[in-house]
Amino acid sequence: MSKKNALYAQSGGVTAVINASACGVIETARKHKDKIGTVFAGRNGIIGALGEDLIDTSKESDADIAALRFTPSGAFGSARYKLKGLEDNDREYERLIAVFKAHDIGYFFYNGGGDSADTCYKVSQLSQTLGYPVQAIHVPKTIDNDLPLTDCCPGFGSVAKYIAISTLEASLDVRSMAKTSTQIFVLEVMGRHAGWIAAAAGLLAEQGIPVVILFPEIPFDQAKFLAKVDANVRKFGYCTVVVSEGVRLADGKFLAEQGTKDAFGHVHLGGAAPVIANLIKEAHGFKFHWAVANYLQRAARHLASKTDVKHAYDVGRAAVQLALKGHNSVMPTIERVSDAPYKYKIGMADLKNVANVEKFMPKNFISRDGFGITEACRRYLTPLIQGEDYPHYANGLPRYVTLKNVSVKKKLPPFAI
Amino acid sequence: MSKKNALYAQSGGVTAVINASACGVIETARKHKDKIGTVFAGRNGIIGALGEDLIDTSKESDADIAALRFTPSGAFGSARYKLKGLEDNDREYERLIAVFKAHDIGYFFYNGGGDSADTCYKVSQLSQTLGYPVQAIHVPKTIDNDLPLTDCCPGFGSVAKYIAISTLEASLDVRSMAKTSTQIFVLEVMGRHAGWIAAAAGLLAEQGIPVVILFPEIPFDQAKFLAKVDANVRKFGYCTVVVSEGVRLADGKFLAEQGTKDAFGHVHLGGAAPVIANLIKEAHGFKFHWAVANYLQRAARHLASKTDVKHAYDVGRAAVQLALKGHNSVMPTIERVSDAPYKYKIGMADLKNVANVEKFMPKNFISRDGFGITEACRRYLTPLIQGEDYPHYANGLPRYVTLKNVSVKKKLPPFAI
Repeated sequence: MSKKNALYAQSGGVTAVINASACGVIETARKHKDKIGTVFAGRNGIIGALGEDLIDTSKESDADIAALRFTPSGAFGSARYKLKGLEDNDREYERLIAVFKAHDIGYFFYNGGGDSADTCYKVSQLSQTLGYPVQAIHVPKTIDNDLPLTDCCPGFGSVAKYIAISTLEASLDVRSMAKTSTQIFVLEVMGRHAGWIAAAAGLLAEQGIPVVILFPEIPFDQAKFLAKVDANVRKFGYCTVVVSEGVRLADGKFLAEQGTKDAFGHVHLGGAAPVIANLIKEAHGFKFHWAVANYLQRAARHLASKTDVKHAYDVGRAAVQLALKGHNSVMPTIERVSDAPYKYKIGMADLKNVANVEKFMPKNFISRDGFGITEACRRYLTPLIQGEDYPHYANGLPRYVTLKNVSVKKKLPPFAI
Repeated sequence: MSKKNALYAQSGGVTAVINASACGVIETARKHKDKIGTVFAGRNGIIGALGEDLIDTSKESDADIAALRFTPSGAFGSARYKLKGLEDNDREYERLIAVFKAHDIGYFFYNGGGDSADTCYKVSQLSQTLGYPVQAIHVPKTIDNDLPLTDCCPGFGSVAKYIAISTLEASLDVRSMAKTSTQIFVLEVMGRHAGWIAAAAGLLAEQGIPVVILFPEIPFDQAKFLAKVDANVRKFGYCTVVVSEGVRLADGKFLAEQGTKDAFGHVHLGGAAPVIANLIKEAHGFKFHWAVANYLQRAARHLASKTDVKHAYDVGRAAVQLALKGHNSVMPTIERVSDAPYKYKIGMADLKNVANVEKFMPKNFISRDGFGITEACRRYLTPLIQGEDYPHYANGLPRYVTLKNVSVKKKLPPFAI
């Protein structure tokens, strides 16, 4: 095997731990300088790859690369950009191969979710056809936890931990205030299609916190929901509601897409949280507070799950190791060995089985009434939020690294994206 | 000085560290059993005191009391309840004295903000008049940071740290995504009258994060604001906006009170964040995300400032020490000795000078353009977010304590509140 350079690119929504995967890729590649030359990174993901806008990661110190493990966001920039189908777009794939060829890139590590797995798969197939073989390895990442063939997705465990802890803290707050003030706290969390993130709040039930969860998988039943909230307030004095942004009415319309208008006359998407809070107020008169966590939840590296960070690093390292073993068109996976004590190993899946398959929450993970999680779900989730992995602090703030991100000299003519 | 019991009560909105003050009060009292008998706590604050609904804190183990230092929320319940003016309401004050008398209470420690300082002051004055002298000591607490005569208020430093870090993390996220997706992130933070909490995001400027702050002190100037955001996006590729919930238009109307209606036809208060986000979208077309931190920010004990926790404990301890020295009608204060290295000592203020005085942000803390903070503000804020003081974790979640809260047998007839 001759020495080749590598291209690493981040794709889609970033997470608290995607840089830990980058760290795993780069640190492992640096240990195999006989096989892997320079690790380039795409500036803003695949956009940088197409535009030949590459970053030379060899210009970064070992200390800065190590600091990626503790830094949220995408250190090289990410992109929401899906390559078009091959039929109408071999132009983009041909350009990618041209960039690979120009920079002697033999390894492509693509760090993303379902869409990027599909892109990575196509690259792995096409590079052969187009006469410039590249080993394309997908590095799994998504807070949505919806990739198949892996027990979980790096990024998810940290969001789950953040939501469980934030919900716990806010619930204790409301419990303190409920006698004379706020009785209802509504937290809106991410999850357009699947309720994995919302499910994390279900872990609080064993602490006696009354949490009602609204999953996107369950059409919103207003009467049943309002009765449940009322019962909780009667029993506990307060109630917390965790609502997925993707909750829909029976007619399929998102709760959050209520087309409200503000005083400026602008229609805007409110969140699902205020809609839910106001419904409760209207029905029962309870005083409420609501929060929308949005990016705070997926960026919260300060509260990352140690298990999740380790997963993220491990799949980055494994991607390089698989490449060095000669694999192509695969994705390292997390295979659970046991729940308690939690043990896992790194496995491998063929990309053709990963691309375009979404994994939803199993039906037996949602409680019968539709507002909570089952014991099976608890067993699944609990290991994923284990352990704390605090960043270093200076002057009261985490020392997150910003890389130099030195550009590689371009060799090709410009390309219109 | 004969031995007397003590009453401790929490008041108003709770914080991440108010229980650290409770811990300081109770642990210190336990060291002086010759002078202080039982520390009772009002269940739900002053409501419990009026209703003779007292908690016997001597039933709690030393370990559980120590755990209060790490537990957010109000462990005994708090209340939003302001005693009425003496003119129309000596009934409530007479009742309080009757409860004190019935339970041999000679020390009243009231843990709250401006309103409770006023109540505490009146109790200190009236107990003499009504023939049952009680030493009333106010323990300062408020995330609003608006009490006079103390350099800062316990509770504020932790919120400031949470907002600075959450804004940093979300900003790095947006920076990663800005090329193809989100360019604007808007975070709404607490602060109806003063911009102290929003100001904390100004600490990120030295990290090169483009943050535009909207303070309640500065009437919202739409054109100027939109120009500033646009300039940031042109320069940095993205822009973060931190908006106080209390921001108002020039006519005095809250941005958040836009009287929107949802699809159910219910008028509801949207947050200021979606209003701001949509204004930017309308003007510039930038893609946005927004978050409303709400209770998450004041309950976030997982990210508390070590300095703030220490302040909170210290004022609790000092309150008992002041009482033991014979003081009445006072509040322990935090007196800054130096900024860097940060040093402080505990002072004392007369309650008559605390009650009904609000401290606003000094004019020289807000930058000339109205969207950031000055160097003076940075020097003030920096020490308050210093240090981390993590709770213990079990199974991935913080081990926050829930006390037994055993009721004291009532001795008086019921009282209608």
